[in-house]
Amino acid sequence: MRAVSIVGIGQIPVRKRHEGSLRVLGARVVRQAMADAGIERVDALYAGNMLSDELQSQKHIASLVADEAGLSGVEALQIRAATASGAAALRMAYLAVASGEADSAIAMGVEKMSDSPPTQPLAKALDAEKEVPDGKTLISQNAMLMQMYMDRYAAPREAFAHFAVNAHANALHNPNALFGDKAVTVAEVMASRIISPPIRLFDCSPICDGAAAALLVPATQAHHYTDRPVRLLASSVATDRFRIDDRPEPLILRASQLSMEKALVRAGIQRHDISFFEVHDAFTIMACLLLEAAGFVPPGQGWRMAMDGAFGLNGELPITTMGGLKARGHPIGATALYQTCEICLQLTGRAGANQLPHPQTALLQSVGGAAATVLTHIFGV
Amino acid sequence: MRAVSIVGIGQIPVRKRHEGSLRVLGARVVRQAMADAGIERVDALYAGNMLSDELQSQKHIASLVADEAGLSGVEALQIRAATASGAAALRMAYLAVASGEADSAIAMGVEKMSDSPPTQPLAKALDAEKEVPDGKTLISQNAMLMQMYMDRYAAPREAFAHFAVNAHANALHNPNALFGDKAVTVAEVMASRIISPPIRLFDCSPICDGAAAALLVPATQAHHYTDRPVRLLASSVATDRFRIDDRPEPLILRASQLSMEKALVRAGIQRHDISFFEVHDAFTIMACLLLEAAGFVPPGQGWRMAMDGAFGLNGELPITTMGGLKARGHPIGATALYQTCEICLQLTGRAGANQLPHPQTALLQSVGGAAATVLTHIFGV
Repeated sequence: MRAVSIVGIGQIPVRKRHEGSLRVLGARVVRQAMADAGIERVDALYAGNMLSDELQSQKHIASLVADEAGLSGVEALQIRAATASGAAALRMAYLAVASGEADSAIAMGVEKMSDSPPTQPLAKALDAEKEVPDGKTLISQNAMLMQMYMDRYAAPREAFAHFAVNAHANALHNPNALFGDKAVTVAEVMASRIISPPIRLFDCSPICDGAAAALLVPATQAHHYTDRPVRLLASSVATDRFRIDDRPEPLILRASQLSMEKALVRAGIQRHDISFFEVHDAFTIMACLLLEAAGFVPPGQGWRMAMDGAFGLNGELPITTMGGLKARGHPIGATALYQTCEICLQLTGRAGANQLPHPQTALLQSVGGAAATVLTHIFGV
Repeated sequence: MRAVSIVGIGQIPVRKRHEGSLRVLGARVVRQAMADAGIERVDALYAGNMLSDELQSQKHIASLVADEAGLSGVEALQIRAATASGAAALRMAYLAVASGEADSAIAMGVEKMSDSPPTQPLAKALDAEKEVPDGKTLISQNAMLMQMYMDRYAAPREAFAHFAVNAHANALHNPNALFGDKAVTVAEVMASRIISPPIRLFDCSPICDGAAAALLVPATQAHHYTDRPVRLLASSVATDRFRIDDRPEPLILRASQLSMEKALVRAGIQRHDISFFEVHDAFTIMACLLLEAAGFVPPGQGWRMAMDGAFGLNGELPITTMGGLKARGHPIGATALYQTCEICLQLTGRAGANQLPHPQTALLQSVGGAAATVLTHIFGV
């Protein structure tokens, strides 16, 4: 298996409504990533997207974006894991390069959520036969987890607000963030309207449009393209029981645990080697649960450390360093590629005002549905 | 890169309406493939499906099927290339095993097309902005190709009927075929109702339900599981200009050519080494064009060889040996996995009345949309 490096990235600002169509946004970041690496042609393009079937009536987007980017002829496939689809595209690009099948592969994610209401298609990440008929949605499932957590660990509702406050603070210096001009306070989070009790509006990542891409090559060839390559040290996927109701310990995200364990072994590092964690904070409770499942915090303690500032840029484990899903935005299929871009910027000292001091290793976790699927990627320099 | 073998297969009969739900049918063939190899656990499950978003309101099927099959915890992702999605799942399983990331991976395809009318979701394989608003569908695009072909090569309309006649004849001895009891004649094809001129009903593969799976392991470990392994010698993908209107030579399927060339190089064989060809005969014209693009027949000659019986079980290049998409059926996301199962049966001498004499190498091509994406797989013993 060949070692893999990222040598080019591309991203456009996350916005409520982007003018360009799906193919145009996707092709734009593909060309950006290629220009960043100074490469004219790639062997493969893997696309992450969740909602285009319903929102853009498009079920063949990898080939479509490849054509729009002037890459007709190239290998192009779409990979999905519901809300973790961007990470799934990254994994396939990793496998293609690691295996030797491709000497260059782009993982591209694109999502336009504002074309029509995405709530119903988003709920299709759940069990259509056994959950959705009960009125369950991704929001209500996260609300259930938050309530269970508060009950079990006596966590105050305000505790979760700190994840949102931190994310918004970090977005202020990210030009690609949706909420690049909007700091929030705990009081504001608590005063925001109730969406699905106990979840309030500011616990939720926003509906938005975006696209991002990363270009992967064999590590041994990385210096041909850049003097700032980032190694993709590990890629893994794990699943849990599909329905939360079937899980013996719903507050322990088993898929996160399993994929984390596999990724650490593959990367040959320890948990404490990780400099920062781009966590899947689609909801504040999810950030808390992932920090616990990944082993950084004992179960039931994530909220305490958030209140203590442990996850800020100057904390012991910075998370959502460029705004996270909450404040950079969560254009679903593009999200993990945005995070990949941000990780590359951090690891190569280009994160501007949000730059961490000499980070060496970054963790990315991506959650599909109600954590029925979790992907873990580890990056290093 | 590790060599890869198939050591287990699973398939259920293709039917107009299957009673089981998507997850149940998918899990059934997963367990079948595992039982066939005598294996209790796999590292990964890759799912092929095209229509579940609309027809079953389900966007997270890989994890769902893994759970139903008792494989909770396992890696599970969905891969798509519109109507070639089953082949995309096969490719991802190949990459996972070839790269060393997985020591066992299942490629599973499942599709239930009869739950509600699939015509609109199927058209999403085309360009939603530039083709579908003109009323174009997969059928009308194939009709356009057939008319162009007839005009350019002075091919009689009847010529294409021979592909359907051959497919139905071969389905008669396949217990999993939808049309296992229905031979057709050229006259019957020509008398069937017009769907989109010049395409008639019997030029088209049917709407149906099905599921099939294949279990892949490193070739060096294959003998642990079976004494009849089949090597997956090559896997490749290529794209064309997305819209037929943008192609300089619409009757030359460039994606088929390109992926065929890549696959032959990877397999280290010549075209004439191929014993039989499981062709993507979603429409009779598509079988003809693929035979030409893959280089078995000069452009404009496919129909002549079909009339001469060259593609029958006793012909020089047998195709659709178990009924093809036309008569076994084309449950979209499952189709390439059905073909994989059939290829394994042929290559290991288990194809019953349709058994070819000592086939050594098989070709599979899978067409996404109007051949904007084509996947090629080559198998051998």
